[in-house]
Amino acid sequence: MDQVKHYVEANKDRFVSELFDLLRIPSISAQSEHRPDMQRCAEFLAAKLVEAGADRAEVMPTEGNPVVYAEKIIDPKARTVLVYGHYDVMPVDPREEWRTDPFEPVVEQGRIRARGADDDKGQLWMHAKAFEAMCATDSLPCNVKFMLEGEEEIGSPSLYGFCREHRKMLEADVILVSDTSMISMDTPSITCGLRGLAYMEVEVTGPNKDLHSGLFGGAVANPANVLARLVAELVDERGHVTVPGFYDDVRVLTPVERRAFNKAPFSLAAYKRALDIRDVAGEEGFTTIERTGIRPSLDVNGIWGGYTGEGTKTVIPSKASAKISMRLVPNQDYRKISKLFERHFRAIAPKSVRVTVKALHGGMPYVTPTDMPAYRAAERAIADVFGKRPLPFYSGGSIPIISGFESILGIKSLLIGFGLAEDAIHSPNESYGLDQFYKGLETIPLFYKYFAAGK
Amino acid sequence: MDQVKHYVEANKDRFVSELFDLLRIPSISAQSEHRPDMQRCAEFLAAKLVEAGADRAEVMPTEGNPVVYAEKIIDPKARTVLVYGHYDVMPVDPREEWRTDPFEPVVEQGRIRARGADDDKGQLWMHAKAFEAMCATDSLPCNVKFMLEGEEEIGSPSLYGFCREHRKMLEADVILVSDTSMISMDTPSITCGLRGLAYMEVEVTGPNKDLHSGLFGGAVANPANVLARLVAELVDERGHVTVPGFYDDVRVLTPVERRAFNKAPFSLAAYKRALDIRDVAGEEGFTTIERTGIRPSLDVNGIWGGYTGEGTKTVIPSKASAKISMRLVPNQDYRKISKLFERHFRAIAPKSVRVTVKALHGGMPYVTPTDMPAYRAAERAIADVFGKRPLPFYSGGSIPIISGFESILGIKSLLIGFGLAEDAIHSPNESYGLDQFYKGLETIPLFYKYFAAGK
Repeated sequence: MDQVKHYVEANKDRFVSELFDLLRIPSISAQSEHRPDMQRCAEFLAAKLVEAGADRAEVMPTEGNPVVYAEKIIDPKARTVLVYGHYDVMPVDPREEWRTDPFEPVVEQGRIRARGADDDKGQLWMHAKAFEAMCATDSLPCNVKFMLEGEEEIGSPSLYGFCREHRKMLEADVILVSDTSMISMDTPSITCGLRGLAYMEVEVTGPNKDLHSGLFGGAVANPANVLARLVAELVDERGHVTVPGFYDDVRVLTPVERRAFNKAPFSLAAYKRALDIRDVAGEEGFTTIERTGIRPSLDVNGIWGGYTGEGTKTVIPSKASAKISMRLVPNQDYRKISKLFERHFRAIAPKSVRVTVKALHGGMPYVTPTDMPAYRAAERAIADVFGKRPLPFYSGGSIPIISGFESILGIKSLLIGFGLAEDAIHSPNESYGLDQFYKGLETIPLFYKYFAAGK
Repeated sequence: MDQVKHYVEANKDRFVSELFDLLRIPSISAQSEHRPDMQRCAEFLAAKLVEAGADRAEVMPTEGNPVVYAEKIIDPKARTVLVYGHYDVMPVDPREEWRTDPFEPVVEQGRIRARGADDDKGQLWMHAKAFEAMCATDSLPCNVKFMLEGEEEIGSPSLYGFCREHRKMLEADVILVSDTSMISMDTPSITCGLRGLAYMEVEVTGPNKDLHSGLFGGAVANPANVLARLVAELVDERGHVTVPGFYDDVRVLTPVERRAFNKAPFSLAAYKRALDIRDVAGEEGFTTIERTGIRPSLDVNGIWGGYTGEGTKTVIPSKASAKISMRLVPNQDYRKISKLFERHFRAIAPKSVRVTVKALHGGMPYVTPTDMPAYRAAERAIADVFGKRPLPFYSGGSIPIISGFESILGIKSLLIGFGLAEDAIHSPNESYGLDQFYKGLETIPLFYKYFAAGK
């Protein structure tokens, strides 16, 4: 292990400078004009994985963006780790809130700032470079496979089919994923719960054209007012989602489980201060960490309609729209929830407008068993590096494909992420601490060692 | 009068082609990049009014866009008509819904299509050309003054001061305005009521940056959800505006007045068909024409927040905003209503967000007395041309400056507009019928004749 540490120490500046090259590629999967960047990014990663020591690496086409697959087989009888990550990133708007160009990474106060610095380029790069260090020092104790996709931020539409087609190639004992966060550097944690997601888009149409709000105001249903009312009705004053049947399949924790869950260190004052809010809000009867960890939620992700430019325009818009997503918990099924949402939204719309409801993407919630060998190996590796046994943590986020891995490939996933809340993923000025990057690099080879030894 | 008619007949194609030159100037007052177009448009009009026969015409600077002033004094003892119009137009978005370029006028099926074709370039042009015809045939029976502003669509912020500064120059017996519509070509009408306007912009701010909707969803107030709820609360299920005190000053019509008001021809089926809506909506207990004519209303003119682009982004927006305007009726005061709105909006906002409320512009409601000489002259002129006595009509629209004219200049306004609902002012594909333009041209000189004779 000392050899690996020395190799990392001797090469760490190069690792960061290579990561900068990766971050410079604006691989935004949600925006079709970035299609060529996706290909470029995949080719960059495949080339780097071969340099790092892979026996082979390929950019494999899908109906969407390509998947980078690479592997190094040291011994067919050894344990196999399948590393999953994603090279696509979120859109950058509102761009004007970025202090520097989102695709020209900088280091400021020990943190790398760029879109994807954490999510997920920074995190997958730790795996690529830990792999390089183990290969270079001849200390790789497991077979390793890499599967890096370019569509995670849009719901991994092609990866399900990819997994079905390549079941054999992807055989492994565990899927290793760094695409999550820890509670803090002082309180390391392993994510063992992820919420599911049902992401919808709704459109309310009133008159067949924009109307003069003076001539028609008061006599015609205004789609923007109607949309506001419909959105408002989706959550009641106690923070409950009002879609009938929404809570039917929610797994309710026992009082003992809830007490254990609430033992995770959490400061409400620090939370409010960090977000600059006077008060939190959410479902009555649950704590803040329960509200994101074990309870489902409903949020408007975008809303638009009418005149939104400078000055005034006295118009009744013909249409108004919203993107609305629901985070789901075990055992909610996003397909059922999407249907319930659609039926409810149509039911509450008045006769004076027409509505369309589309399900844009979705994914199932996921739970990692804390007694599987990979979990225990990760627990030891993190304890070695951070000096503390990591807590099991339920994240509010979703990685829809993780539950897909289990159902298609029959392989459990281990989520050892080194992100922090302050990384501001999906937000302007996303960043990743160099210390997070280096601690991750140090932890990963130890995980391999303990996981291989546990066989 | 025959001479005037012949002159118009001989020159009508040129009148339309000159109007096209005026319509080609994209004089959008709400968008500051069009500032140079405002100046250009004003200079065009001043030059044309001199050509038409004005003794003098000037482009008079204000703090905002210039005012075009022109006059022809035939006899200090004759009656004086002050023609008011505006050369600014509304923004054109959604631009993709225009069948042709909004600033490249075309005639299709007897209608001129362009932004401003009706509102108000087409309508003011009838006055300019009627004036030219009367001057050219030496039959102008009154003194005429023109005051054409470039800020009507943004609430005439500079014209109030302009009127205060130039009271003497603007002295007149009546202000003549064509910036309104008739019920139909078969049912001519004179607008004798205009609603007032209070136009607000609200912003709801939650966390200090956009947040990941998975990590924070359910635990933090989402400004877009909160905005939707606040907007929804502004109007109750019976169509009443919930702002306390909102209805305090509303003049309530007597049953006799309401019966007279509802005698105007109106087909609900045709109204719904024209707008392609299955049902109308509005304040309980009032008819559709009452809802826009004699009752106040509240509409969202624009709403925006979060991710509104292609695909999905799982974000809790830091801010969400709306433009909300209220149409007012006698004797509501827009300043009082703006204050009541602001107080109420702040009061209903939860502690988990911050709100800002700005009053963008406003104006008072206005009523024209139907027994004044100018009204009676207009009634006769319209009856001559349309073959029917015009009905007094209460429009839902607002021309805030009209009540300003009365309070500053002490002059009543006469609103003889030749627009129709199908002109779709403020909407894509705004148009103005050539028959409307020509009938207006024919009516105006008759009005001058009867008004002068009535002295």
